[in-house]
Amino acid sequence: MRRGRYPVVDDLTVDEALRALVVERDWEQFHSPANLAKSIAIEAGELLQCFQWSEESPRDRVVEELADVLTYARLLAARLEVDPDQIVLDKLAVTEKKYPVDRARGSSARYDEV
Amino acid sequence: MRRGRYPVVDDLTVDEALRALVVERDWEQFHSPANLAKSIAIEAGELLQCFQWSEESPRDRVVEELADVLTYARLLAARLEVDPDQIVLDKLAVTEKKYPVDRARGSSARYDEV
Amino acid sequence: MRRGRYPVVDDLTVDEALRALVVERDWEQFHSPANLAKSIAIEAGELLQCFQWSEESPRDRVVEELADVLTYARLLAARLEVDPDQIVLDKLAVTEKKYPVDRARGSSARYDEV
Amino acid sequence: MRRGRYPVVDDLTVDEALRALVVERDWEQFHSPANLAKSIAIEAGELLQCFQWSEESPRDRVVEELADVLTYARLLAARLEVDPDQIVLDKLAVTEKKYPVDRARGSSARYDEV
Repeated sequence: MRRGRYPVVDDLTVDEALRALVVERDWEQFHSPANLAKSIAIEAGELLQCFQWSEESPRDRVVEELADVLTYARLLAARLEVDPDQIVLDKLAVTEKKYPVDRARGSSARYDEV
Repeated sequence: MRRGRYPVVDDLTVDEALRALVVERDWEQFHSPANLAKSIAIEAGELLQCFQWSEESPRDRVVEELADVLTYARLLAARLEVDPDQIVLDKLAVTEKKYPVDRARGSSARYDEV
Repeated sequence: MRRGRYPVVDDLTVDEALRALVVERDWEQFHSPANLAKSIAIEAGELLQCFQWSEESPRDRVVEELADVLTYARLLAARLEVDPDQIVLDKLAVTEKKYPVDRARGSSARYDEV
Repeated sequence: MRRGRYPVVDDLTVDEALRALVVERDWEQFHSPANLAKSIAIEAGELLQCFQWSEESPRDRVVEELADVLTYARLLAARLEVDPDQIVLDKLAVTEKKYPVDRARGSSARYDEV
């Protein structure tokens, strides 16, 4: 992380910084798993809007919308008390088995259609 | 990260492991920013399905769907060559200013309605 | 409507047929506006999945997913006691003003960017 | 339909009115099935936003977002040359079989879990 830019955040991990933001504003009451799942879907819709009529979109706009998705996704991971990196790795291990290299190479077919 | 569980992944970071998965299967051709944005929205819909008729959902199911959202979100970050943690922190700094503690405390109103 | 194919539905309008389906199964209890909004987003995600990796998709699959979106959208309109055709026309009148023909022609820009 | 409110629309069906709006602005070029599917998902996200933090939402706001979903859904039906009412009835017939009254009554379980 770059240091010195976020007075409140300095020396905090991302999850600590997110937690501080939420706790200071007493927002935990709104962050049920169901509400965070809705929030992720809402922000995913805004991200998709970058590409509504075109394959291309200004990079800064995409980055900002992606950040919103990631923020709510990390808040949900924290709420469920799971490590966001670890669950990605766990799922990756499942995907590796579902899509063996020799059969999946160069194909976008679902594993049950490969 | 727990070690020893992912033969392919061992000693790799999450992003390196995801990249290996994609490259080995020649899937980069499908991973345009627009397609990854669609994928995030699709997986966000599956996550939301956990809460379609109820505020509660089995934790394992939620974790698995969240992992899919995070996977595509990290792939998009990698495609855009941004650090997923850094863009969350950048957005957090914006949110802190939009929602000053004294005005936002305990309220779910949008910043333009606070 | 083609007649004779739907014994239960025959001579019913679409909304009457949907209502019969729901009432017979005692599903009204699940159909709060919030739950129907979630359902529309979930089905919209499944529709989007038809186009996840390609601009093309088998027509039958798209039609089926679109039918699910329309079903929940009509159920929400009924719940809100609005005519689904009328609200489309009302919104169309707004869109016509926001996007005057001479400025909007051939452009996908949002009205505040036109 | 109420008459006299929509100079352009008067005496037109909803689909004819939507088609006039699109053709006059030369927007058909943007309305591929894939782009309309994205648009439905984006508007479904905005509809969901009405319920992001609460089960309740001002009725007018919900109606407006629902109208946007229905508009793009009807445009996609027109693009696929299917009758939006007929495909809802076709799907309803499938749902009736998947969820027999005696087993589905009062349950929100999916058909494969009933």
